[in-house]
Amino acid sequence: MGSGFPILGRHSPRLKRLRELDTPAGRSKSGCFLLEGVRVMAEALQAGLDLDWLLVARGASEEAFDLAGRAARTGVEVGLLEAEVLERLAPTRTSQGLLGVARIPGTELEHVLRGDLVVLLEGVQDPGNTGTLLRTARAAGAGGAVLVGGADPFNPRAVRAASGAAFRLPLIRLEPRQAPMLLQALAQAGFDLACAEAHGGQDLYQASFPKRMALVLGGEVRGVSEACRRAAVARWTIPLEGDCESLNVAAAAAVILFEARRRRLHAAGMEGPGT
Amino acid sequence: MGSGFPILGRHSPRLKRLRELDTPAGRSKSGCFLLEGVRVMAEALQAGLDLDWLLVARGASEEAFDLAGRAARTGVEVGLLEAEVLERLAPTRTSQGLLGVARIPGTELEHVLRGDLVVLLEGVQDPGNTGTLLRTARAAGAGGAVLVGGADPFNPRAVRAASGAAFRLPLIRLEPRQAPMLLQALAQAGFDLACAEAHGGQDLYQASFPKRMALVLGGEVRGVSEACRRAAVARWTIPLEGDCESLNVAAAAAVILFEARRRRLHAAGMEGPGT
Repeated sequence: MGSGFPILGRHSPRLKRLRELDTPAGRSKSGCFLLEGVRVMAEALQAGLDLDWLLVARGASEEAFDLAGRAARTGVEVGLLEAEVLERLAPTRTSQGLLGVARIPGTELEHVLRGDLVVLLEGVQDPGNTGTLLRTARAAGAGGAVLVGGADPFNPRAVRAASGAAFRLPLIRLEPRQAPMLLQALAQAGFDLACAEAHGGQDLYQASFPKRMALVLGGEVRGVSEACRRAAVARWTIPLEGDCESLNVAAAAAVILFEARRRRLHAAGMEGPGT
Repeated sequence: MGSGFPILGRHSPRLKRLRELDTPAGRSKSGCFLLEGVRVMAEALQAGLDLDWLLVARGASEEAFDLAGRAARTGVEVGLLEAEVLERLAPTRTSQGLLGVARIPGTELEHVLRGDLVVLLEGVQDPGNTGTLLRTARAAGAGGAVLVGGADPFNPRAVRAASGAAFRLPLIRLEPRQAPMLLQALAQAGFDLACAEAHGGQDLYQASFPKRMALVLGGEVRGVSEACRRAAVARWTIPLEGDCESLNVAAAAAVILFEARRRRLHAAGMEGPGT
Protein backbone atom coordinates (compact mmCIF):
# COMPACT_ATOMS: atom_id res chain seq x y z
CA MET A 1 0.00 0.00 0.00
CA GLY A 2 2.89 2.32 0.65
CA SER A 3 0.97 3.65 3.63
CA GLY A 4 4.10 3.98 5.72
CA PHE A 5 2.54 2.24 8.69
CA PRO A 6 4.71 -0.46 10.30
CA ILE A 7 3.66 -4.03 9.55
CA LEU A 8 2.58 -6.29 12.43
CA GLY A 9 3.10 -10.04 12.24
CA ARG A 10 0.36 -12.46 13.25
CA HIS A 11 2.27 -13.38 16.42
CA SER A 12 2.72 -9.84 17.70
CA PRO A 13 2.01 -9.65 21.47
CA ARG A 14 -0.23 -6.68 20.70
CA LEU A 15 -2.72 -8.96 19.03
CA LYS A 16 -3.00 -11.15 22.12
CA ARG A 17 -3.87 -8.07 24.21
CA LEU A 18 -6.44 -7.06 21.64
CA ARG A 19 -8.11 -10.47 21.87
CA GLU A 20 -8.44 -10.07 25.62
CA LEU A 21 -10.70 -7.04 25.13
CA ASP A 22 -13.41 -9.42 23.98
CA THR A 23 -14.01 -10.45 27.62
CA PRO A 24 -15.31 -8.36 30.58
CA ALA A 25 -12.22 -9.37 32.62
CA GLY A 26 -9.86 -8.21 29.85
CA ARG A 27 -11.61 -4.84 29.54
CA SER A 28 -11.72 -4.36 33.27
CA LYS A 29 -8.00 -5.18 33.68
CA SER A 30 -6.81 -2.87 30.91
CA GLY A 31 -9.49 -0.16 31.16
CA CYS A 32 -9.70 -0.34 27.35
CA PHE A 33 -12.23 -1.44 24.78
CA LEU A 34 -12.28 -2.40 21.13
CA LEU A 35 -13.55 -0.31 18.22
CA GLU A 36 -14.45 -1.91 14.90
CA GLY A 37 -15.33 -0.51 11.53
CA VAL A 38 -15.32 2.77 9.67
CA ARG A 39 -18.38 4.39 11.21
CA VAL A 40 -17.47 3.68 14.83
CA MET A 41 -13.88 4.87 14.21
CA ALA A 42 -15.07 8.11 12.59
CA GLU A 43 -17.31 8.77 15.59
CA ALA A 44 -14.41 8.02 17.95
CA LEU A 45 -12.10 10.53 16.25
CA GLN A 46 -14.82 13.16 16.17
CA ALA A 47 -15.60 12.59 19.85
CA GLY A 48 -11.92 13.02 20.71
CA LEU A 49 -11.87 9.57 22.30
CA ASP A 50 -8.57 8.58 23.90
CA LEU A 51 -7.29 6.08 21.30
CA ASP A 52 -4.38 3.86 22.30
CA TRP A 53 -3.58 2.30 18.96
CA LEU A 54 -5.18 1.28 15.72
CA LEU A 55 -4.84 -1.48 13.13
CA VAL A 56 -5.67 -1.23 9.47
CA ALA A 57 -5.78 -4.14 7.02
CA ARG A 58 -3.78 -4.24 3.82
CA GLY A 59 -6.33 -3.65 1.07
CA ALA A 60 -8.88 -1.90 3.29
CA SER A 61 -10.94 0.96 1.81
CA GLU A 62 -9.61 4.45 1.22
CA GLU A 63 -11.96 5.61 3.97
CA ALA A 64 -10.31 3.20 6.44
CA PHE A 65 -6.81 4.43 5.48
CA ASP A 66 -7.97 8.06 5.74
CA LEU A 67 -9.18 7.47 9.29
CA ALA A 68 -5.95 5.64 10.18
CA GLY A 69 -4.00 8.61 8.79
CA ARG A 70 -6.06 11.09 10.78
CA ALA A 71 -5.45 9.08 13.95
CA ALA A 72 -1.71 8.86 13.22
CA ARG A 73 -1.49 12.64 12.84
CA THR A 74 -2.88 13.05 16.39
CA GLY A 75 -0.13 10.78 17.70
CA VAL A 76 -1.97 7.44 17.70
CA GLU A 77 0.21 4.46 16.83
CA VAL A 78 -1.04 2.68 13.70
CA GLY A 79 -0.05 -0.81 12.52
CA LEU A 80 -0.66 -2.54 9.22
CA LEU A 81 -1.92 -6.14 9.18
CA GLU A 82 -2.88 -8.77 6.64
CA ALA A 83 -6.65 -8.60 6.01
CA GLU A 84 -7.35 -12.21 7.00
CA VAL A 85 -5.44 -11.85 10.29
CA LEU A 86 -7.35 -8.70 11.19
CA GLU A 87 -10.69 -10.23 10.28
CA ARG A 88 -10.02 -13.17 12.59
CA LEU A 89 -9.28 -10.75 15.44
CA ALA A 90 -12.52 -8.79 15.00
CA PRO A 91 -15.14 -10.20 17.39
CA THR A 92 -18.18 -9.14 15.36
CA ARG A 93 -16.55 -10.00 12.00
CA THR A 94 -17.55 -6.65 10.57
CA SER A 95 -14.36 -4.69 11.03
CA GLN A 96 -14.14 -3.37 7.44
CA GLY A 97 -10.38 -3.73 7.92
CA LEU A 98 -10.20 -1.29 10.82
CA LEU A 99 -9.71 -2.05 14.52
CA GLY A 100 -8.77 0.22 17.38
CA VAL A 101 -8.14 0.17 21.11
CA ALA A 102 -9.37 3.06 23.24
CA ARG A 103 -9.62 3.94 26.93
CA ILE A 104 -13.08 3.39 28.43
CA PRO A 105 -14.26 6.95 29.18
CA GLY A 106 -14.93 7.72 32.84
CA THR A 107 -18.08 9.75 33.56
CA GLU A 108 -19.57 11.21 36.75
CA LEU A 109 -23.26 10.69 37.52
CA GLU A 110 -23.62 14.47 37.69
CA HIS A 111 -22.61 14.72 34.03
CA VAL A 112 -25.11 12.02 33.01
CA LEU A 113 -27.95 13.93 34.71
CA ARG A 114 -27.30 17.27 32.98
CA GLY A 115 -30.18 17.17 30.48
CA ASP A 116 -33.93 16.80 30.92
CA LEU A 117 -34.07 13.18 29.77
CA VAL A 118 -32.07 10.25 31.07
CA VAL A 119 -32.47 6.59 30.21
CA LEU A 120 -32.14 3.95 32.90
CA LEU A 121 -31.49 0.39 31.71
CA GLU A 122 -32.15 -2.21 34.39
CA GLY A 123 -30.56 -5.52 33.53
CA VAL A 124 -30.84 -5.37 29.72
CA GLN A 125 -28.90 -8.55 28.92
CA ASP A 126 -28.36 -8.56 25.18
CA PRO A 127 -25.37 -6.43 24.05
CA GLY A 128 -27.08 -5.72 20.71
CA ASN A 129 -30.19 -4.41 22.45
CA THR A 130 -28.06 -2.33 24.84
CA GLY A 131 -26.09 -0.76 21.99
CA THR A 132 -29.15 -0.08 19.83
CA LEU A 133 -30.88 1.47 22.83
CA LEU A 134 -27.98 3.85 23.50
CA ARG A 135 -27.90 4.86 19.83
CA THR A 136 -31.64 5.59 19.90
CA ALA A 137 -31.47 7.43 23.22
CA ARG A 138 -28.79 9.77 21.95
CA ALA A 139 -30.70 10.43 18.70
CA ALA A 140 -33.86 11.19 20.70
CA GLY A 141 -32.04 13.85 22.70
CA ALA A 142 -31.32 12.03 25.97
CA GLY A 143 -28.59 13.70 28.01
CA GLY A 144 -27.23 10.46 29.40
CA ALA A 145 -27.82 6.84 30.34
CA VAL A 146 -27.45 4.80 33.50
CA LEU A 147 -26.97 1.03 33.18
CA VAL A 148 -27.80 -1.01 36.27
CA GLY A 149 -26.42 -4.52 35.78
CA GLY A 150 -27.02 -6.17 32.41
CA ALA A 151 -24.72 -6.15 29.39
CA ASP A 152 -21.47 -4.19 29.29
CA PRO A 153 -21.88 -1.22 26.89
CA PHE A 154 -18.19 -1.70 25.97
CA ASN A 155 -18.71 -5.27 24.82
CA PRO A 156 -17.71 -5.27 21.10
CA ARG A 157 -21.23 -6.18 19.94
CA ALA A 158 -22.73 -3.38 22.02
CA VAL A 159 -20.16 -0.87 20.73
CA ARG A 160 -20.96 -1.84 17.17
CA ALA A 161 -24.77 -1.61 17.67
CA ALA A 162 -24.39 1.74 19.47
CA SER A 163 -22.66 3.15 16.39
CA GLY A 164 -20.65 5.62 18.48
CA ALA A 165 -23.25 6.33 21.16
CA ALA A 166 -21.39 4.18 23.72
CA PHE A 167 -18.79 6.95 23.94
CA ARG A 168 -20.74 9.99 22.72
CA LEU A 169 -23.62 9.72 25.19
CA PRO A 170 -22.53 10.27 28.83
CA LEU A 171 -23.13 6.98 30.59
CA ILE A 172 -22.41 5.29 33.85
CA ARG A 173 -22.62 1.66 35.00
CA LEU A 174 -23.83 0.72 38.47
CA GLU A 175 -24.29 -2.49 40.40
CA PRO A 176 -27.88 -3.39 41.36
CA ARG A 177 -26.98 -2.74 45.04
CA GLN A 178 -26.28 0.92 44.12
CA ALA A 179 -29.89 1.43 42.92
CA PRO A 180 -31.09 3.18 46.14
CA MET A 181 -28.27 5.74 45.83
CA LEU A 182 -29.20 6.30 42.18
CA LEU A 183 -32.90 6.80 42.94
CA GLN A 184 -31.97 9.36 45.58
CA ALA A 185 -29.66 11.22 43.17
CA LEU A 186 -32.36 11.27 40.49
CA ALA A 187 -34.91 12.67 42.95
CA GLN A 188 -32.47 15.33 44.13
CA ALA A 189 -31.77 16.35 40.54
CA GLY A 190 -35.52 16.79 39.98
CA PHE A 191 -36.10 13.75 37.74
CA ASP A 192 -39.45 11.96 37.75
CA LEU A 193 -39.23 8.23 37.05
CA ALA A 194 -41.44 6.65 34.39
CA CYS A 195 -41.34 2.87 33.84
CA ALA A 196 -42.04 1.09 30.58
CA GLU A 197 -44.12 -2.03 31.24
CA ALA A 198 -45.33 -4.68 28.80
CA HIS A 199 -48.74 -4.96 30.50
CA GLY A 200 -51.06 -3.09 32.81
CA GLY A 201 -49.56 0.41 32.70
CA GLN A 202 -51.28 3.58 31.50
CA ASP A 203 -51.70 3.87 27.70
CA LEU A 204 -48.57 5.72 26.56
CA TYR A 205 -50.57 7.98 24.26
CA GLN A 206 -52.96 9.06 27.05
CA ALA A 207 -50.18 9.86 29.51
CA SER A 208 -48.74 13.25 30.40
CA PHE A 209 -44.94 13.31 30.39
CA PRO A 210 -42.84 14.77 33.21
CA LYS A 211 -40.63 17.75 32.35
CA ARG A 212 -37.45 16.07 33.66
CA MET A 213 -37.79 12.40 32.99
CA ALA A 214 -35.82 9.26 33.81
CA LEU A 215 -37.25 6.54 31.57
CA VAL A 216 -36.74 3.08 33.09
CA LEU A 217 -36.47 0.07 30.76
CA GLY A 218 -36.27 -3.38 32.30
CA GLY A 219 -34.41 -6.44 31.09
CA GLU A 220 -35.76 -8.79 28.44
CA VAL A 221 -36.95 -11.36 30.99
CA ARG A 222 -37.45 -9.75 34.40
CA GLY A 223 -38.63 -6.27 33.42
CA VAL A 224 -38.37 -3.29 35.76
CA SER A 225 -37.36 -3.84 39.44
CA GLU A 226 -39.81 -3.44 42.30
CA ALA A 227 -37.69 -0.58 43.72
CA CYS A 228 -38.00 1.44 40.50
CA ARG A 229 -41.70 0.69 40.17
CA ARG A 230 -42.29 1.99 43.68
CA ALA A 231 -40.28 5.15 43.05
CA ALA A 232 -41.98 5.86 39.69
CA VAL A 233 -44.60 8.55 39.12
CA ALA A 234 -45.86 6.72 36.03
CA ARG A 235 -45.99 3.26 34.44
CA TRP A 236 -46.63 3.22 30.74
CA THR A 237 -47.67 0.51 28.32
CA ILE A 238 -47.50 0.84 24.55
CA PRO A 239 -50.89 -0.19 23.13
CA LEU A 240 -50.20 -3.21 20.91
CA GLU A 241 -52.40 -4.89 18.35
CA GLY A 242 -54.63 -7.78 19.40
CA ASP A 243 -52.84 -10.72 20.97
CA CYS A 244 -49.27 -9.37 20.65
CA GLU A 245 -47.31 -10.03 23.82
CA SER A 246 -44.62 -7.37 23.77
CA LEU A 247 -42.03 -5.49 21.75
CA ASN A 248 -38.29 -6.01 21.75
CA VAL A 249 -36.89 -3.77 24.51
CA ALA A 250 -34.92 -1.57 22.06
CA ALA A 251 -38.02 -1.17 19.86
CA ALA A 252 -40.15 -0.24 22.90
CA ALA A 253 -37.52 2.31 23.92
CA ALA A 254 -37.57 3.81 20.40
CA VAL A 255 -41.36 4.22 20.53
CA ILE A 256 -41.37 5.91 23.95
CA LEU A 257 -38.26 8.07 23.49
CA PHE A 258 -39.51 9.42 20.16
CA GLU A 259 -43.01 10.00 21.53
CA ALA A 260 -41.26 12.18 24.15
CA ARG A 261 -39.29 13.87 21.38
CA ARG A 262 -42.42 14.48 19.28
CA ARG A 263 -44.09 16.21 22.22
CA ARG A 264 -41.01 18.31 22.99
CA LEU A 265 -40.70 19.42 19.36
CA HIS A 266 -44.43 20.13 19.22
CA ALA A 267 -44.31 22.23 22.41
CA ALA A 268 -41.29 24.16 21.11
CA GLY A 269 -43.12 24.78 17.82
CA MET A 270 -46.17 26.05 19.66
CA GLU A 271 -44.13 28.60 21.55
CA GLY A 272 -42.36 29.73 18.41
CA PRO A 273 -38.67 29.39 17.58
CA GLY A 274 -36.02 30.32 20.09
CA THR A 275 -38.07 29.75 23.23
CA MET B 1 -38.08 -37.65 33.25
CA GLY B 2 -40.67 -40.38 32.61
CA SER B 3 -42.04 -38.19 29.83
CA GLY B 4 -42.77 -41.18 27.63
CA PHE B 5 -41.08 -39.52 24.63
CA PRO B 6 -38.63 -41.76 22.72
CA ILE B 7 -34.95 -40.99 23.31
CA LEU B 8 -32.82 -39.88 20.34
CA GLY B 9 -29.10 -40.64 20.24
CA ARG B 10 -26.57 -38.02 19.21
CA HIS B 11 -26.00 -39.77 15.88
CA SER B 12 -29.65 -39.91 14.83
CA PRO B 13 -30.03 -38.95 11.13
CA ARG B 14 -32.80 -36.59 12.24
CA LEU B 15 -30.23 -34.35 13.88
CA LYS B 16 -28.25 -34.03 10.68
CA ARG B 17 -31.38 -32.84 8.84
CA LEU B 18 -32.02 -30.37 11.61
CA ARG B 19 -28.53 -28.90 11.26
CA GLU B 20 -29.15 -28.34 7.55
CA LEU B 21 -31.98 -25.91 8.38
CA ASP B 22 -29.35 -23.44 9.53
CA THR B 23 -28.53 -22.69 5.87
CA PRO B 24 -30.68 -21.08 3.13
CA ALA B 25 -30.03 -24.10 0.87
CA GLY B 26 -31.17 -26.53 3.55
CA ARG B 27 -34.38 -24.58 4.18
CA SER B 28 -35.08 -24.22 0.50
CA LYS B 29 -34.56 -27.96 -0.18
CA SER B 30 -36.77 -29.16 2.67
CA GLY B 31 -39.29 -26.30 2.77
CA CYS B 32 -38.86 -26.33 6.55
CA PHE B 33 -37.42 -24.04 9.21
CA LEU B 34 -36.24 -24.30 12.77
CA LEU B 35 -38.06 -23.07 15.88
CA GLU B 36 -36.19 -22.51 19.14
CA GLY B 37 -37.33 -21.74 22.63
CA VAL B 38 -40.47 -21.66 24.71
CA ARG B 39 -41.97 -18.40 23.46
CA VAL B 40 -41.56 -19.13 19.76
CA MET B 41 -42.95 -22.66 20.24
CA ALA B 42 -45.98 -21.39 22.15
CA GLU B 43 -46.68 -18.91 19.33
CA ALA B 44 -46.28 -21.70 16.77
CA LEU B 45 -48.82 -23.96 18.50
CA GLN B 46 -51.25 -21.08 18.91
CA ALA B 47 -50.86 -20.10 15.26
CA GLY B 48 -51.61 -23.69 14.22
CA LEU B 49 -48.29 -23.87 12.37
CA ASP B 50 -47.60 -27.10 10.53
CA LEU B 51 -45.04 -28.71 12.88
CA ASP B 52 -43.08 -31.68 11.58
CA TRP B 53 -41.37 -32.80 14.75
CA LEU B 54 -40.04 -31.46 18.00
CA LEU B 55 -37.13 -32.13 20.36
CA VAL B 56 -37.11 -31.52 24.09
CA ALA B 57 -34.05 -31.74 26.33
CA ARG B 58 -33.89 -33.96 29.38
CA GLY B 59 -34.13 -31.57 32.34
CA ALA B 60 -35.84 -28.76 30.38
CA SER B 61 -38.45 -26.61 32.16
CA GLU B 62 -41.99 -27.77 32.92
CA GLU B 63 -43.17 -25.17 30.39
CA ALA B 64 -41.02 -26.81 27.67
CA PHE B 65 -42.43 -30.27 28.50
CA ASP B 66 -45.98 -28.88 28.57
CA LEU B 67 -45.52 -27.48 25.07
CA ALA B 68 -43.99 -30.76 23.87
CA GLY B 69 -46.98 -32.60 25.34
CA ARG B 70 -49.44 -30.26 23.64
CA ALA B 71 -47.68 -30.80 20.32
CA ALA B 72 -47.66 -34.58 20.82
CA ARG B 73 -51.42 -34.59 21.42
CA THR B 74 -51.97 -32.94 18.02
CA GLY B 75 -49.98 -35.75 16.40
CA VAL B 76 -46.53 -34.13 16.25
CA GLU B 77 -43.65 -36.55 16.80
CA VAL B 78 -41.60 -35.62 19.87
CA GLY B 79 -38.12 -36.90 20.75
CA LEU B 80 -36.13 -36.60 23.96
CA LEU B 81 -32.47 -35.59 23.83
CA GLU B 82 -29.60 -34.95 26.24
CA ALA B 83 -29.47 -31.23 27.09
CA GLU B 84 -25.90 -30.70 25.88
CA VAL B 85 -26.59 -32.38 22.53
CA LEU B 86 -29.67 -30.22 21.96
CA GLU B 87 -27.87 -27.03 22.97
CA ARG B 88 -25.13 -27.73 20.42
CA LEU B 89 -27.76 -28.16 17.71
CA ALA B 90 -29.48 -24.85 18.46
CA PRO B 91 -28.05 -22.18 16.14
CA THR B 92 -28.79 -19.22 18.44
CA ARG B 93 -27.79 -21.12 21.61
CA THR B 94 -30.97 -19.99 23.33
CA SER B 95 -33.18 -23.01 22.79
CA GLN B 96 -34.29 -23.38 26.44
CA GLY B 97 -34.22 -27.09 25.74
CA LEU B 98 -36.84 -26.94 23.00
CA LEU B 99 -36.35 -27.24 19.23
CA GLY B 100 -38.85 -27.85 16.48
CA VAL B 101 -39.07 -28.23 12.73
CA ALA B 102 -42.01 -26.69 10.87
CA ARG B 103 -43.11 -26.16 7.28
CA ILE B 104 -42.43 -22.66 5.93
CA PRO B 105 -45.93 -21.22 5.49
CA GLY B 106 -46.87 -20.25 1.94
CA THR B 107 -48.71 -16.94 1.54
CA GLU B 108 -50.25 -15.16 -1.45
CA LEU B 109 -49.52 -11.47 -2.04
CA GLU B 110 -53.27 -10.86 -1.96
CA HIS B 111 -53.37 -12.08 1.63
CA VAL B 112 -50.45 -9.83 2.63
CA LEU B 113 -52.27 -6.79 1.23
CA ARG B 114 -55.54 -7.31 3.11
CA GLY B 115 -55.08 -4.62 5.79
CA ASP B 116 -54.48 -0.86 5.54
CA LEU B 117 -50.78 -1.04 6.45
CA VAL B 118 -48.09 -3.14 4.85
CA VAL B 119 -44.36 -3.04 5.50
CA LEU B 120 -41.92 -3.37 2.62
CA LEU B 121 -38.35 -4.32 3.54
CA GLU B 122 -35.88 -3.66 0.74
CA GLY B 123 -32.64 -5.52 1.31
CA VAL B 124 -32.53 -5.46 5.11
CA GLN B 125 -29.45 -7.65 5.60
CA ASP B 126 -29.26 -8.43 9.31
CA PRO B 127 -31.53 -11.34 10.36
CA GLY B 128 -31.90 -9.81 13.85
CA ASN B 129 -33.10 -6.52 12.37
CA THR B 130 -35.46 -8.36 10.01
CA GLY B 131 -36.98 -10.39 12.84
CA THR B 132 -37.33 -7.43 15.21
CA LEU B 133 -38.92 -5.42 12.43
CA LEU B 134 -41.53 -8.12 11.72
CA ARG B 135 -42.34 -8.35 15.45
CA THR B 136 -42.80 -4.58 15.65
CA ALA B 137 -44.85 -4.43 12.44
CA ARG B 138 -47.31 -7.02 13.71
CA ALA B 139 -47.62 -5.28 17.11
CA ALA B 140 -48.26 -1.95 15.36
CA GLY B 141 -51.17 -3.47 13.41
CA ALA B 142 -49.60 -4.10 10.01
CA GLY B 143 -51.58 -6.58 7.92
CA GLY B 144 -48.53 -8.05 6.24
CA ALA B 145 -44.94 -7.65 5.12
CA VAL B 146 -43.13 -7.92 1.80
CA LEU B 147 -39.39 -8.67 1.84
CA VAL B 148 -37.48 -7.79 -1.32
CA GLY B 149 -34.06 -9.42 -1.12
CA GLY B 150 -32.16 -9.17 2.16
CA ALA B 151 -32.17 -11.64 5.05
CA ASP B 152 -34.34 -14.75 5.06
CA PRO B 153 -37.11 -14.29 7.67
CA PHE B 154 -36.85 -18.06 8.33
CA ASN B 155 -33.18 -17.85 9.27
CA PRO B 156 -33.03 -19.08 12.92
CA ARG B 157 -31.81 -15.71 14.23
CA ALA B 158 -34.61 -13.89 12.43
CA VAL B 159 -37.22 -16.36 13.73
CA ARG B 160 -35.97 -15.86 17.26
CA ALA B 161 -35.97 -12.04 17.00
CA ALA B 162 -39.44 -12.09 15.41
CA SER B 163 -40.78 -13.91 18.47
CA GLY B 164 -43.51 -15.61 16.44
CA ALA B 165 -44.19 -12.80 13.97
CA ALA B 166 -42.35 -14.64 11.16
CA PHE B 167 -45.31 -17.04 10.97
CA ARG B 168 -48.13 -14.95 12.47
CA LEU B 169 -47.78 -11.95 10.17
CA PRO B 170 -48.63 -12.77 6.53
CA LEU B 171 -45.41 -12.28 4.59
CA ILE B 172 -43.99 -12.90 1.19
CA ARG B 173 -40.43 -12.86 -0.19
CA LEU B 174 -39.62 -11.48 -3.62
CA GLU B 175 -36.52 -11.12 -5.74
CA PRO B 176 -35.42 -7.54 -6.54
CA ARG B 177 -36.37 -8.18 -10.20
CA GLN B 178 -40.00 -8.68 -9.09
CA ALA B 179 -40.18 -5.14 -7.65
CA PRO B 180 -42.03 -3.63 -10.67
CA MET B 181 -44.76 -6.29 -10.37
CA LEU B 182 -45.03 -5.55 -6.64
CA LEU B 183 -45.31 -1.79 -7.15
CA GLN B 184 -48.07 -2.37 -9.66
CA ALA B 185 -49.96 -4.71 -7.27
CA LEU B 186 -49.65 -2.18 -4.45
CA ALA B 187 -51.03 0.61 -6.65
CA GLN B 188 -53.92 -1.58 -7.81
CA ALA B 189 -54.77 -2.43 -4.20
CA GLY B 190 -54.89 1.29 -3.37
CA PHE B 191 -51.71 1.53 -1.33
CA ASP B 192 -49.69 4.74 -1.24
CA LEU B 193 -45.94 4.24 -0.81
CA ALA B 194 -44.05 6.17 1.88
CA CYS B 195 -40.27 5.79 2.16
CA ALA B 196 -38.25 6.15 5.35
CA GLU B 197 -35.04 8.06 4.63
CA ALA B 198 -32.17 8.94 6.94
CA HIS B 199 -31.74 12.43 5.44
CA GLY B 200 -33.60 14.99 3.42
CA GLY B 201 -37.19 13.73 3.67
CA GLN B 202 -40.15 15.58 5.15
CA ASP B 203 -40.18 15.78 8.98
CA LEU B 204 -42.19 12.70 10.04
CA TYR B 205 -44.15 14.69 12.60
CA GLN B 206 -45.22 17.30 10.03
CA ALA B 207 -46.37 14.75 7.46
CA SER B 208 -49.88 13.60 6.71
CA PHE B 209 -50.20 9.82 6.49
CA PRO B 210 -51.98 8.01 3.65
CA LYS B 211 -55.03 5.95 4.59
CA ARG B 212 -53.68 2.77 2.96
CA MET B 213 -49.94 2.83 3.41
CA ALA B 214 -47.01 0.72 2.28
CA LEU B 215 -44.07 1.82 4.42
CA VAL B 216 -40.75 1.18 2.65
CA LEU B 217 -37.64 0.57 4.76
CA GLY B 218 -34.30 0.23 3.00
CA GLY B 219 -31.30 -1.90 3.91
CA GLU B 220 -28.70 -0.87 6.48
CA VAL B 221 -26.23 0.30 3.85
CA ARG B 222 -28.00 1.12 0.58
CA GLY B 223 -31.35 2.43 1.85
CA VAL B 224 -34.46 2.56 -0.33
CA SER B 225 -34.19 1.75 -4.06
CA GLU B 226 -34.58 4.38 -6.75
CA ALA B 227 -37.68 2.55 -8.11
CA CYS B 228 -39.48 2.79 -4.76
CA ARG B 229 -38.44 6.41 -4.25
CA ARG B 230 -39.90 7.30 -7.64
CA ALA B 231 -43.16 5.47 -6.90
CA ALA B 232 -43.55 6.99 -3.42
CA VAL B 233 -46.01 9.75 -2.53
CA ALA B 234 -43.91 10.68 0.50
CA ARG B 235 -40.36 10.48 1.86
CA TRP B 236 -40.07 10.89 5.59
CA THR B 237 -37.15 11.58 7.88
CA ILE B 238 -37.27 11.19 11.65
CA PRO B 239 -35.92 14.41 13.21
CA LEU B 240 -32.81 13.38 15.17
CA GLU B 241 -30.85 15.29 17.77
CA GLY B 242 -27.87 17.38 16.71
CA ASP B 243 -25.15 15.52 14.85
CA CYS B 244 -26.72 12.03 15.02
CA GLU B 245 -26.37 10.23 11.70
CA SER B 246 -29.22 7.73 11.75
CA LEU B 247 -31.15 5.15 13.72
CA ASN B 248 -30.89 1.39 13.45
CA VAL B 249 -33.41 0.31 10.77
CA ALA B 250 -35.58 -1.65 13.23
CA ALA B 251 -35.64 1.32 15.64
CA ALA B 252 -36.58 3.70 12.80
CA ALA B 253 -39.38 1.31 11.78
CA ALA B 254 -40.66 1.24 15.38
CA VAL B 255 -40.80 5.03 15.51
CA ILE B 256 -42.70 5.39 12.21
CA LEU B 257 -45.03 2.39 12.62
CA PHE B 258 -46.09 3.51 16.10
CA GLU B 259 -46.51 7.13 14.97
CA ALA B 260 -48.95 5.70 12.40
CA ARG B 261 -50.62 3.66 15.15
CA ARG B 262 -50.89 6.68 17.47
CA ARG B 263 -52.66 8.64 14.75
CA ARG B 264 -55.02 5.76 13.95
CA LEU B 265 -55.93 5.28 17.62
CA HIS B 266 -56.37 9.04 18.01
CA ALA B 267 -58.66 9.26 14.97
CA ALA B 268 -60.70 6.29 16.21
CA GLY B 269 -61.03 7.94 19.66
CA MET B 270 -62.15 11.21 18.05
CA GLU B 271 -64.93 9.47 16.20
CA GLY B 272 -66.08 7.60 19.30
CA PRO B 273 -65.98 3.86 19.90
CA GLY B 274 -67.27 1.44 17.31
CA THR B 275 -66.69 3.65 14.30
